[in-house]
Amino acid sequence: MRVMGVDPGLTRCGIALVESGAGRAVAALDVDVVRTPASMDLADRLLAVHTAAVHWIVTHRPEVVAIERVFAQQQVSTAMGTAQAAGVVALAAAQHDIPVRFHTPSEVKAAVTGSGRADKAQVTSMVTRILGMQTRPKPADAADALALAICQCWRGPMGDRLVAAQAKAEELAKTHRARLKAAHAAAVKARR
Amino acid sequence: MRVMGVDPGLTRCGIALVESGAGRAVAALDVDVVRTPASMDLADRLLAVHTAAVHWIVTHRPEVVAIERVFAQQQVSTAMGTAQAAGVVALAAAQHDIPVRFHTPSEVKAAVTGSGRADKAQVTSMVTRILGMQTRPKPADAADALALAICQCWRGPMGDRLVAAQAKAEELAKTHRARLKAAHAAAVKARR
Repeated sequence: MRVMGVDPGLTRCGIALVESGAGRAVAALDVDVVRTPASMDLADRLLAVHTAAVHWIVTHRPEVVAIERVFAQQQVSTAMGTAQAAGVVALAAAQHDIPVRFHTPSEVKAAVTGSGRADKAQVTSMVTRILGMQTRPKPADAADALALAICQCWRGPMGDRLVAAQAKAEELAKTHRARLKAAHAAAVKARR
Repeated sequence: MRVMGVDPGLTRCGIALVESGAGRAVAALDVDVVRTPASMDLADRLLAVHTAAVHWIVTHRPEVVAIERVFAQQQVSTAMGTAQAAGVVALAAAQHDIPVRFHTPSEVKAAVTGSGRADKAQVTSMVTRILGMQTRPKPADAADALALAICQCWRGPMGDRLVAAQAKAEELAKTHRARLKAAHAAAVKARR
């Protein structure tokens, strides 16, 4: 499974490509940080992020794009720009028929460190170890993009199986309710 | 001046095209509301909004795209999606080399009604009168998109002139400071 992980942002947008193998084996294929200056028009900054995302998608053909879920609660001043950067990356994936999955920061931290409250240094350390990298990825946005991709490799298939299992259970419950209703109607009819 | 006004949103995204003439003359050329269901994937919803924006831009070739500025403070639950819809519309404009301008809701209300606190009904009434429309535009998102375009027609050129005037003033001040410094240096030198 080839996963593109994205830590969205306008000032710095981390993009990583990770390939998963058997079991929990994962390898980093590429990682980079797209930067746009705050002095640039918002529309042009979004264009730069979108162009970079399209370039990565066309070059690497990932099977899924994992993006950090942005919440409005944290840092209101930058949250909107971050959400918009995440939006144009999701758009780039949709334009190339590639599914998009979102993970919260705590889901990502929990996946790579075992704790949803790990700090940036812990995440970077674990990412470096998991991927067997010679040097620690820098800046934090690069490490976060790698962590997102790892999270998707490890939790994604499970998440997708969970969704499938829930749909199946819902289907069975529906059939069961329909059968109960039919049996009840038949019993009522027989009693008359 | 041909202006495309956009009231961004995922559930409903208002898009309008207004042409300004001499003085405050404005005419509505087209208005529509793009809708995407909440059950649809976020990436696909953004794709639908982006596709519609590109279609309008290519068809109508506006000279400027005016988009409502979204604040994180209001309705946190929907603000992120609204910001992302605004983002993909701004991206569509940047991809076609069309400048993007943002206006706050109160700027738009003040431009069309004279009051930054006007309610939706007042905005719709004034938009209907200003554009000489036979029927009131519906839903509110359509009226808001028209109001945004009118706001850009009326305030935009002034805003652009203000920016140009500020740049000019800054330039003059810089030249003045440089001359003062040179005169001071010359005076010091003459005194030695």
